[in-house]
Amino acid sequence: MKIKITGTGLYLPPDIETSKKIASLIGKSENWILEKSGVLERRVSKIDVDKMGAIAGIEALGENGKPDLIINASGVPKQTIPDTSTFFQKEMGYEGIPSFSIHATCLSFITAFHTASTLINSKAYKRILIISSDRGTRGRNFNEPESASLLGDGAAAVVIEPSLNSENNELLYFQMETWPNGANLTEVRGGGTNRHPQDKDTTIEDNLFSMDGPGIYKIARKQVYKMMLKTLKNTGLDKNDIDWIVPHQASGKAVEAYVSAGGFSRNKVIDIVSKYGNCVAASVPMALTISIQNSKIKRGDLVLLIGTGAGLSAACALIRY
Amino acid sequence: MKIKITGTGLYLPPDIETSKKIASLIGKSENWILEKSGVLERRVSKIDVDKMGAIAGIEALGENGKPDLIINASGVPKQTIPDTSTFFQKEMGYEGIPSFSIHATCLSFITAFHTASTLINSKAYKRILIISSDRGTRGRNFNEPESASLLGDGAAAVVIEPSLNSENNELLYFQMETWPNGANLTEVRGGGTNRHPQDKDTTIEDNLFSMDGPGIYKIARKQVYKMMLKTLKNTGLDKNDIDWIVPHQASGKAVEAYVSAGGFSRNKVIDIVSKYGNCVAASVPMALTISIQNSKIKRGDLVLLIGTGAGLSAACALIRY
Repeated sequence: MKIKITGTGLYLPPDIETSKKIASLIGKSENWILEKSGVLERRVSKIDVDKMGAIAGIEALGENGKPDLIINASGVPKQTIPDTSTFFQKEMGYEGIPSFSIHATCLSFITAFHTASTLINSKAYKRILIISSDRGTRGRNFNEPESASLLGDGAAAVVIEPSLNSENNELLYFQMETWPNGANLTEVRGGGTNRHPQDKDTTIEDNLFSMDGPGIYKIARKQVYKMMLKTLKNTGLDKNDIDWIVPHQASGKAVEAYVSAGGFSRNKVIDIVSKYGNCVAASVPMALTISIQNSKIKRGDLVLLIGTGAGLSAACALIRY
Repeated sequence: MKIKITGTGLYLPPDIETSKKIASLIGKSENWILEKSGVLERRVSKIDVDKMGAIAGIEALGENGKPDLIINASGVPKQTIPDTSTFFQKEMGYEGIPSFSIHATCLSFITAFHTASTLINSKAYKRILIISSDRGTRGRNFNEPESASLLGDGAAAVVIEPSLNSENNELLYFQMETWPNGANLTEVRGGGTNRHPQDKDTTIEDNLFSMDGPGIYKIARKQVYKMMLKTLKNTGLDKNDIDWIVPHQASGKAVEAYVSAGGFSRNKVIDIVSKYGNCVAASVPMALTISIQNSKIKRGDLVLLIGTGAGLSAACALIRY
């Protein structure tokens, strides 16, 4: 599909929380955190997801201004109703732009990127702003040290437009799979009809992030590897043709697996997890935006966005940037 | 876009709650409810949204079985993470089917219908199952009589596939607009990062449905009317060309407005609000499915799905069924 990323934006909250600081809160050592999650430090936001996302959105839009569609592609909303896209639009000072949310937890951005590409391909829209903004530190359960040490806050945004016939920018391939037998491996059980806040037996833990890291890793590594092989087979490409792997920053171990198990050279795999932690749906666009803005990823490069998310799902999108 | 609805499914919870019964709970008379909300009775579900949606989904899929994508298009999720599409898939007994959610509150179905059509148009998928399942009675605030008397439970599902060149089934037109200045007119402020359940100042009311009915009606009637005129202008159609109006069942007054203000003849406007209440995102596909299943809407009919949702948004989709 003939689409082009025409803008990127980022919001990195200024407050840094080191793993040294968080170690005492979760009753573990700094070394334990580094070994388990690979996170050295993370950002903690004082402003809410809508304001974070709007800052990234405005930067991504740049001087060309107003988009004709706003998609919120975050993991956790600002509130149950209305969806967060409305609040992004409000913070950016617009009125009248259609907006909605796409939710696939940590894969929200990759899913929204594909969906937005089909919307452009069908000529429904010409300039789509996708924003992922997550404040995972709000939902940390300090009694679950591994996930609590993983989560960080951040936001990123991209603008997608049609590419010209003379340009080679495109979305070459997309794939997604969801296995509900892993639905309970990553959860926030509250916030909906299941464990409603007004129910007496709803606990505080029901509203916090719960994750079986080793359980996910076991399924995810195998499934993501299969998905990578299938992507190469279906596109007729070789591993060496891919310039950059932009993985979901699930954990240090998960990112490392693209090198150790995936067989990609280390300098091709974008790794921001030690510095920013797992920022839920914002991790993929943050890694992409940082790499574009620091000129690692250049025009014409072949970039594979890939990862797993609660569901359990795996997805990838191969783009010519 | 050349798409066709190839299956429909419905779940109407068996338990009926009359407005006579609910009157005492909200401190109003049955007549007050009928006048304000136009709801005579609503269904109250004992099973959760995933089971409700799966029943509708299985009926919609029929004998042709497995879809290649499942989209959850509900207003309120089962839980914050993972998104409800995973739980639908789990209840239907599938594994490996890509699935995600589209959220635009009461407009989730219309938005998902358009998005699914572009996914089919781009040949990304061939058989998409869209499920809307809402259990609004779980979030009723009995201290807010008007909205509490409106909400009901229900689920509906449709299957969309490409239509053949020899068939006239298609999505002719789609439009959406969102005005964040109406973001606070319909809210559930809890369930996310805004009023987090663990915050001491989060109240029970923050997790319940809050709605300024008259405030919405004032904006919505004008905006929806403008959207209808624009739809007719852009498609070159006349009001009389449209066979059926399938509106979001926001309230008796909101549905009636398509007759009194919109100028459509009463027998063309599908009205199920008195019997089932406002079922959030499920209202539009329930009204569509009921009208298809009782042979009101026939193959070749021109059907306008239209409504407003929290955001505040308005959207419409014109389909040749």
